[in-house]
Amino acid sequence: MATDTSADTTVFERRESQARSYCRAFPTVFTKASGSILSDAEGRDYIDFLAGCSSLNYGHNDADMKAALIDHISRDGVTHGLDMFTDAKAAFLETFERLILTPRGMDYKVMMTGPTGTNAVEAAIKLARKVTGRRNIVAFTNAFHGMTMGSLALTGNSGKRDGAGGGSLADVTHMPFENAMGDNDTLEYIEWTLDNPSSGMDAPAAFIVEPVQGEGGLNAASAEWLQGIQRLARKHGALFIIDDIQAGIGRTGTYFSTEEFGLDPDMITQAKSFSGMGLPFAALLIKPEHDIWKPAEHNGTFRGNNHAFVTARIALEKFWSDDRFAKDVQRKGDYLHQRLQGIAAMVPGATLKGRGMMLGVDVGDGELASQICATCFDNGLIIETSGAHDEVVKVLAPLTTPDEIFTKGLDILEAAVAAATGKNQIAAE
Amino acid sequence: MATDTSADTTVFERRESQARSYCRAFPTVFTKASGSILSDAEGRDYIDFLAGCSSLNYGHNDADMKAALIDHISRDGVTHGLDMFTDAKAAFLETFERLILTPRGMDYKVMMTGPTGTNAVEAAIKLARKVTGRRNIVAFTNAFHGMTMGSLALTGNSGKRDGAGGGSLADVTHMPFENAMGDNDTLEYIEWTLDNPSSGMDAPAAFIVEPVQGEGGLNAASAEWLQGIQRLARKHGALFIIDDIQAGIGRTGTYFSTEEFGLDPDMITQAKSFSGMGLPFAALLIKPEHDIWKPAEHNGTFRGNNHAFVTARIALEKFWSDDRFAKDVQRKGDYLHQRLQGIAAMVPGATLKGRGMMLGVDVGDGELASQICATCFDNGLIIETSGAHDEVVKVLAPLTTPDEIFTKGLDILEAAVAAATGKNQIAAE
Amino acid sequence: MATDTSADTTVFERRESQARSYCRAFPTVFTKASGSILSDAEGRDYIDFLAGCSSLNYGHNDADMKAALIDHISRDGVTHGLDMFTDAKAAFLETFERLILTPRGMDYKVMMTGPTGTNAVEAAIKLARKVTGRRNIVAFTNAFHGMTMGSLALTGNSGKRDGAGGGSLADVTHMPFENAMGDNDTLEYIEWTLDNPSSGMDAPAAFIVEPVQGEGGLNAASAEWLQGIQRLARKHGALFIIDDIQAGIGRTGTYFSTEEFGLDPDMITQAKSFSGMGLPFAALLIKPEHDIWKPAEHNGTFRGNNHAFVTARIALEKFWSDDRFAKDVQRKGDYLHQRLQGIAAMVPGATLKGRGMMLGVDVGDGELASQICATCFDNGLIIETSGAHDEVVKVLAPLTTPDEIFTKGLDILEAAVAAATGKNQIAAE
Amino acid sequence: MATDTSADTTVFERRESQARSYCRAFPTVFTKASGSILSDAEGRDYIDFLAGCSSLNYGHNDADMKAALIDHISRDGVTHGLDMFTDAKAAFLETFERLILTPRGMDYKVMMTGPTGTNAVEAAIKLARKVTGRRNIVAFTNAFHGMTMGSLALTGNSGKRDGAGGGSLADVTHMPFENAMGDNDTLEYIEWTLDNPSSGMDAPAAFIVEPVQGEGGLNAASAEWLQGIQRLARKHGALFIIDDIQAGIGRTGTYFSTEEFGLDPDMITQAKSFSGMGLPFAALLIKPEHDIWKPAEHNGTFRGNNHAFVTARIALEKFWSDDRFAKDVQRKGDYLHQRLQGIAAMVPGATLKGRGMMLGVDVGDGELASQICATCFDNGLIIETSGAHDEVVKVLAPLTTPDEIFTKGLDILEAAVAAATGKNQIAAE
Repeated sequence: MATDTSADTTVFERRESQARSYCRAFPTVFTKASGSILSDAEGRDYIDFLAGCSSLNYGHNDADMKAALIDHISRDGVTHGLDMFTDAKAAFLETFERLILTPRGMDYKVMMTGPTGTNAVEAAIKLARKVTGRRNIVAFTNAFHGMTMGSLALTGNSGKRDGAGGGSLADVTHMPFENAMGDNDTLEYIEWTLDNPSSGMDAPAAFIVEPVQGEGGLNAASAEWLQGIQRLARKHGALFIIDDIQAGIGRTGTYFSTEEFGLDPDMITQAKSFSGMGLPFAALLIKPEHDIWKPAEHNGTFRGNNHAFVTARIALEKFWSDDRFAKDVQRKGDYLHQRLQGIAAMVPGATLKGRGMMLGVDVGDGELASQICATCFDNGLIIETSGAHDEVVKVLAPLTTPDEIFTKGLDILEAAVAAATGKNQIAAE
Repeated sequence: MATDTSADTTVFERRESQARSYCRAFPTVFTKASGSILSDAEGRDYIDFLAGCSSLNYGHNDADMKAALIDHISRDGVTHGLDMFTDAKAAFLETFERLILTPRGMDYKVMMTGPTGTNAVEAAIKLARKVTGRRNIVAFTNAFHGMTMGSLALTGNSGKRDGAGGGSLADVTHMPFENAMGDNDTLEYIEWTLDNPSSGMDAPAAFIVEPVQGEGGLNAASAEWLQGIQRLARKHGALFIIDDIQAGIGRTGTYFSTEEFGLDPDMITQAKSFSGMGLPFAALLIKPEHDIWKPAEHNGTFRGNNHAFVTARIALEKFWSDDRFAKDVQRKGDYLHQRLQGIAAMVPGATLKGRGMMLGVDVGDGELASQICATCFDNGLIIETSGAHDEVVKVLAPLTTPDEIFTKGLDILEAAVAAATGKNQIAAE
Repeated sequence: MATDTSADTTVFERRESQARSYCRAFPTVFTKASGSILSDAEGRDYIDFLAGCSSLNYGHNDADMKAALIDHISRDGVTHGLDMFTDAKAAFLETFERLILTPRGMDYKVMMTGPTGTNAVEAAIKLARKVTGRRNIVAFTNAFHGMTMGSLALTGNSGKRDGAGGGSLADVTHMPFENAMGDNDTLEYIEWTLDNPSSGMDAPAAFIVEPVQGEGGLNAASAEWLQGIQRLARKHGALFIIDDIQAGIGRTGTYFSTEEFGLDPDMITQAKSFSGMGLPFAALLIKPEHDIWKPAEHNGTFRGNNHAFVTARIALEKFWSDDRFAKDVQRKGDYLHQRLQGIAAMVPGATLKGRGMMLGVDVGDGELASQICATCFDNGLIIETSGAHDEVVKVLAPLTTPDEIFTKGLDILEAAVAAATGKNQIAAE
Repeated sequence: MATDTSADTTVFERRESQARSYCRAFPTVFTKASGSILSDAEGRDYIDFLAGCSSLNYGHNDADMKAALIDHISRDGVTHGLDMFTDAKAAFLETFERLILTPRGMDYKVMMTGPTGTNAVEAAIKLARKVTGRRNIVAFTNAFHGMTMGSLALTGNSGKRDGAGGGSLADVTHMPFENAMGDNDTLEYIEWTLDNPSSGMDAPAAFIVEPVQGEGGLNAASAEWLQGIQRLARKHGALFIIDDIQAGIGRTGTYFSTEEFGLDPDMITQAKSFSGMGLPFAALLIKPEHDIWKPAEHNGTFRGNNHAFVTARIALEKFWSDDRFAKDVQRKGDYLHQRLQGIAAMVPGATLKGRGMMLGVDVGDGELASQICATCFDNGLIIETSGAHDEVVKVLAPLTTPDEIFTKGLDILEAAVAAATGKNQIAAE
C-alpha cells in the first residue's frame, strides 16, 4: 500500500483527461500544504497566491480544523448521511445562525445543495423560476457561475460555453456589468431595456450577480450599481441573487462581500471557502418566503458533507466570533492595494482591479500576464491570471497569510513584472 | 465551542430549507456511524439498508480508510489543490489503472469532474455533443441522472423536472427502457425510430443508460438489451454512455455493473461509492479517442478531492486486489434474492426488481411501500422506496454487512411486510 | 410589356433559388390550367393527379369561381384590407356557418391566420400553450405540419428539420402514429408514457394529428385510434388539434376528414383547398371557450385574403349545399381503390395506403416510385411520391375530375407501373 | 347566392376569433377600394393613410394590375402551380432582373417562400444558420419580423412574444437599435459585446435589421449605422440580412430602402407591396454563394402565387421602368415632412420619426395617439399608431396618392391633433 510520492507525472499524462488545467501551469507534484505554503515532492516550497481560487481563505490545513476533523473521524462521526439530521449539521447550523445571520440581522433558510458552487447556482435559478413562474435569468457580461448546463448558460465566457458542444443555453439575457465599456452608466441601459416593452427581453425571474467577478477580470461592482440592480429587480418582479462564491467569506474584508452595501438579496450562494478547509461544500441561502421547495425537489447524494460541517463550524468560531479577523483582512487589503499600485505603475497602461484581498493588476494583454505568472512560479510563487483575455494578474492569497510571507510573495511578483516589462522594452527596442 | 449532540431538531426546522427530504422519513439526529450501523443522539442503533443510496458500499467509516485519511490529514497532505498534481492523485490513478483498468483490459482516461454524480453526467453529455457535433441525447423512461439542468433534462421523473420551474429541458429524447411496458421488445421500437427518417428524432449524439435504474424502480437491463443499445448507438454514429453511479463499484457483484455483459462503452460515470468512504467524489471515464477536451473546458473548484483520492485508493487495494470481495457480494446477493422472494410472496402481485445487492420488492403501490419502510424504521432498520410511484421497497445494504446483521435487517423487513399486509387484509375486510 | 410564354427555363436557373423542387420533376413551363388539365408552353396537356398537393380539390380555375372573382375585381371589391371588416369576409363567414358549421352541429370561431397552412399550425400551438400554460406539444412520427420553426418542430422528417441549420426545435414530443411499427397498438404505448410520471414526457399542452398523413406516406388513422388520442388528451388536460390541411375539404369524401369519426376537436386547421381556387388562404377553427387571444396577439399582413373569401364562398355554395358532391367523391374513391388494388397487385409486396380520394400505392422503395412517376410524366400524367423514403405513389386527383379523364390517368399510371416492374424484373434476371 | 353587403357586423362577433384587431379601430364594413379611398357599406369614403401597413404602396386596385389579372384569369392562366415553372413566373423573374437587379448592379437569387413576410424571415434565418453552422441571430430592440416561432423570437415586442404562451424563443440576441437610448452610439456597445469573448453572446449566424422599424416606432437607421452593422457582421463571420418588408418597394423613395446607403446585404426580404396589388406574396433575395438550399428544404403550398406574379410584373413595369415614380415619391415625402413638422409643433415634446413616405409624429403617449387616430376615423381618415407604447401616429399613405387627397388627409390629421391637444389643455387646466 505504498504511496508514490515521487515527482513522476507520467501517470497523469497516461490516465488523466485533457480537461486538466492548473497542473499545466504548475507542473510539479505537490505533497504537503500548510498555511500559505505548498510543498512539492522534491521538497520545494511555494507561496500560494491562488488559494484554491479563494477556496482556502483560511490557508491550507488550519490546525484547529484538522484537529476537529481528526476527532470527528476518530470517534466514528457520521461521514455520509445523505440529508439526514446529524449532530455535526445541527452544530454547524446553530453556529452559522449565531455568528453570521443573527449579528447581521439576516433571516435566511440554508439549503444544502450538492457540494459544488455550480450546484448552488443551479438551485438558485431553478427556485427563482419556480417562485416567479418566469424563465428568463439576467446575468452579466464576464460572469462566471459554473459549468453545468444551467450555470453555463449564465456564464459569459464563450470558450467555456463552447465546451457544451452546442447544447441549448436558453432563457438567459446577458446585460453589461458596471463599467463594462469604460465609464458609461450601464444601469441606465439595463433600466431602459427592462422598461421598453419592445426590447426583446422577456420578463426576468431573477438577476444574478457576482459582486466581484473573480474569473471575469476582478471587476468590482459599486454599492450604488448593485443597489440599482436590486431596485430594478424589485421594480420588475424579479428576484435578486448574489453569487458570493468567490468574493464572499472574508475575501473582501467582511463575511459577505456586500454586507456594507445596504442590500437585501433574495438568495446568496456559498461555496469555495465555505467549509474553511477546502472540502467540497456549498449552500444556498434563501429568504424564508421563497423557500417553496417540495421535499427532494432539488436533491443530490453529497448534499450536506458532514466533514465540512465540522470544519466550517470551526472556521466560523475561530474567525468570525469577533471582528479581529475582518479588521486584519482589511489591513492586509490596504497593504496589498499599495503594493499593487506600485507594481501597476511599472506597466504602461496597467490598472488595478478588484477589492479587498481580491485584487489584481490588468497588464493589458494575456501573454504578458502569463509570462509574469510563469516567472513567479519559477521563483516559488503560485499565482494565476483572470479576465476575458487572461489579462489580469490576480492575487488571491490566503487571508491568514503572515505578513512576512505576504511581503515575500509580493516581492516575487514585483520582480517578475520588472523582468517581464524590462524584457518587453528590450524586445520593443 | 461545544458541539450540540442532543436530539433537538428545532434548528433544522428553523434554518434548513424545505428541500430537505430523508430526514423527514428518519426524524432523529444521527451522531455515529460504523459499518452497517447508524446510531442516534439517544443512543439508538439502526441497521442501514440505504447506505447513502449506494454511496457506502463498503459501510460507514471503514477502519483502514479512516486510518489512511487521518494519517494524510495529520501529515498536512494536500486537502484542496484544484486540479494540480498531488501525490494522492498520482497514487489513486496508478492504483485505479493497476487494479481496475488493466485486469479488465479497459483503456480509459479519467476526468476528475466536480465531486457530484450530476457533474460527471453533465461532462459526459457535453463531451458527447463536442465529439459528434450533434445535440440530441437519448435517455430512457424512469431514468435518473441528476438535478442540474443538463442532467435533469435526461431524468424521466416529472416531479424532479417540475423543480426546474419550466426552464428549458431541450435536446433530449426519451425512449422506453427494457420491458418498460410489460414484456414488449423496446429495442425494436427504438431501432424503428432511429431508422425512420420521419420519426421526429434528431440524430443522437449519445445514448446514456443506467444498467440498473436505482431511482426509477430497480429496473435491471439485460446484457442483450444493453448490447442492442450499444449496437444501435454505433450504427447511428452516437456514443454509448454507461451511467454506473448507483449500480457500479461492486453493487451488482462486479466493479462495473456490466463488466460481464460484453460491452465497450465510450464513457462511464463514477460517483457515490467511488471514494469508498462516502466523501464527495466523481469521475468520468473516457475512451482516449474521445478525450478532446481543451484544458479547463469543463472545470470546477472541487474537482479532484484529495481526501477522496486517499480513501478511494485504500478501497481499491482492500476490496479489489483479488476476487474475494466480489465473490462474497455475489453470495450475499443470492441470499438476498432468496429472502426477498419469500417476502414478495407475502404481497399479492408483488415482484422482485433489480440485480445483485441492488434488489427490491415491487409491492404495487407507494402507500404500502412507505408504510413498510416506516414500520422498519420504528424497529431499527433504515430502508427506502424507489420507482415512479415509490412502489418498490429497495434494499441497498452495505456490501460489507456481516451476515448476522444482514439477516436481522431482513427479518425486520419481513416482519414489517407481514404487519402491513396483515393490516391491509384487516382493513379490506 | 410582352409576357414571355416560351418554354425557355433559363431564367429559373439564373434567378430562382435552389430551394425550388417540383419544377425539377416536371421540367416544363405551364401556361394554362383548367379542371384536371395543365397545359404547357409547347401546347402539351397533362392530367393533374397532384392537384397542388390537395389545394385544387375542385380542379383548376373553376368557371363559377373565376366569374365571381373577376366580378369582384372589376367592381373594385377590396383586395387587401388587413383584418378589417369587408362584405366579402362577412359573406364568407355567413356561408361557412350556414353550410359547414350549423349542419354538422359544430361551434367554432374562425381565426384568419396568415394565408399558409404553417401559419395556422403555428397559431394553433401558440394558442394551446396559452390556454393550458404548458409547453409540450405531442406530434406523431411521419407528421408534416409546415416549415416555420414552430411547425417544423412538429414535423417528423429529418431532412426538413435539417433545413433549420440546427436551430432549436424544442418543446415537442413525437409519439408513434397508428400502426407505425406493423400492427402494434401505439395507443397503449402512448397511454403508458402519459400515465408514467417518470417517462420523461412533460405534461402536454396539445396533441396535433393529421387524420391522413399526406407527406408522411398516406398513413390513415382509424376512428378508434383518433378517439383514443382524443380521450388521452382530455384525460391529461391537453387540447386535441386536428390538422385537416391536406386531408380535409372533401378529399376523403366529407368536408372534414373525420366528421364521421365521433370526434370533438378543440381546434381544426384549414388551408390548401380552403379558397377553392388555389389562392393563399388558411384559417384556424377554435372552440369558443379557447378563443382567448388578445387583439392582434397573432397577426399578419395577409390574414384574410379577400379574393379568397370570394372564391371560398362560391366553393361552399357550389359543392356543399347538398350531399351530391360528397357522394360523387365517395363513388370516385371506391373506383380509385379498386384500380389501385389492381396496380398494387403488380408490384410484389406493394400495399394500398390512405383513404377516400387520398390514396396511393406503397411500392416499397423510393427509386421505383420515382421511376414510375417519371414515366407517367413522359406520358402526360403529373403524379408524385410521398412517405419517409418517397416510397408511396400518391394519387391526389381533383375531386371534380371527369370519369374519362380519371380513368385515362389511372391507365397511364398502370402502364408506368407495368413498365417499371417489367424493367425491374429484367434487371433482376 | 346573395352576398350580404350590409353594414351588419354581427357575424364577425359571432364567428371571427378575438385575435382580430384593425376592425376594432375601424368598425365598419368596407365594400370597395380604389386608389387611396376605401368605401364602406353605407357609402362613406375614407382616405387610407394605413395602406395595408405598406402593402398598398401603389394604392388599391390599380387599373393596369386589375386588367392584367382579369386577363390572366379569363384565359385560364395557372392560378396555383406549387413551385412549378409557369409563364407568369418566368415573366416576373425576367422583369425583376431587368428592372430591379441589373440596373442596381445587384446579383441575387430569388427564393419564392410562403406568401407571408414571416415566412421569408424564417427562410432567411434558417439559411443563415445552415450557411454559417451557427445558431445565434442578432436582432434589434423594437424589431418586428413576424409571428411564427422563428420570426417571433426576433421580435422585440413582449406583448407579441407573450402570445406564444411561453414557447421557446431561443437562439436570438437583441441588441440596441441606433439611438435606442437617446443619442448614444449603440454601434460601440455592439462591437464591444462581439469583441469581448466573455460577453455571453454566442457567435452570430446573422444580423437582421429593418432599415426603418415600421411597428417599432418608425425608427430610421442611418447609412453610417447600417454600414457599421454590416462591417461588424463581416468581421465576425455573420451574414447581414435586410428585412425590407415594410420599408422597401418605394416607401422611402427608392425600390430598396437602403439602395443609396452603400450596403451589400447577404439577403433581403420582400413582402407587403411586393405583389403591387396587395395579394399574398413574399420572397427572399439571396446572394448566389449562399443559395445552398437542397430542393424543397424550405417549401410550402402557396410559394409562388401566380396571380401575384402577374400583378407584381405590372407594378415593376409601370412604376420602376424609369425614375419618375421614385422622384414623385421623394417630392411627396418632402411635403409630408413639412406638414408633419407643423403638426409635431402643436404637441409639446413631439418629434418626427421615420424617413421618406414612412413618417410619423411621436406624440409621447399612446393614449393621445389613439385619440388622434379615432378622431381622424370619425372624420374620414384611416390612420394608425406604431411604437412600443403605440405613441407614434404613423402616416403610410399610398405612394400614388393624388396631391389633393394627400393634402386633405393631412388636414384631417392636423385638425385631429389640434382637437386632441386642445382638449388635453382644457383637461389639464
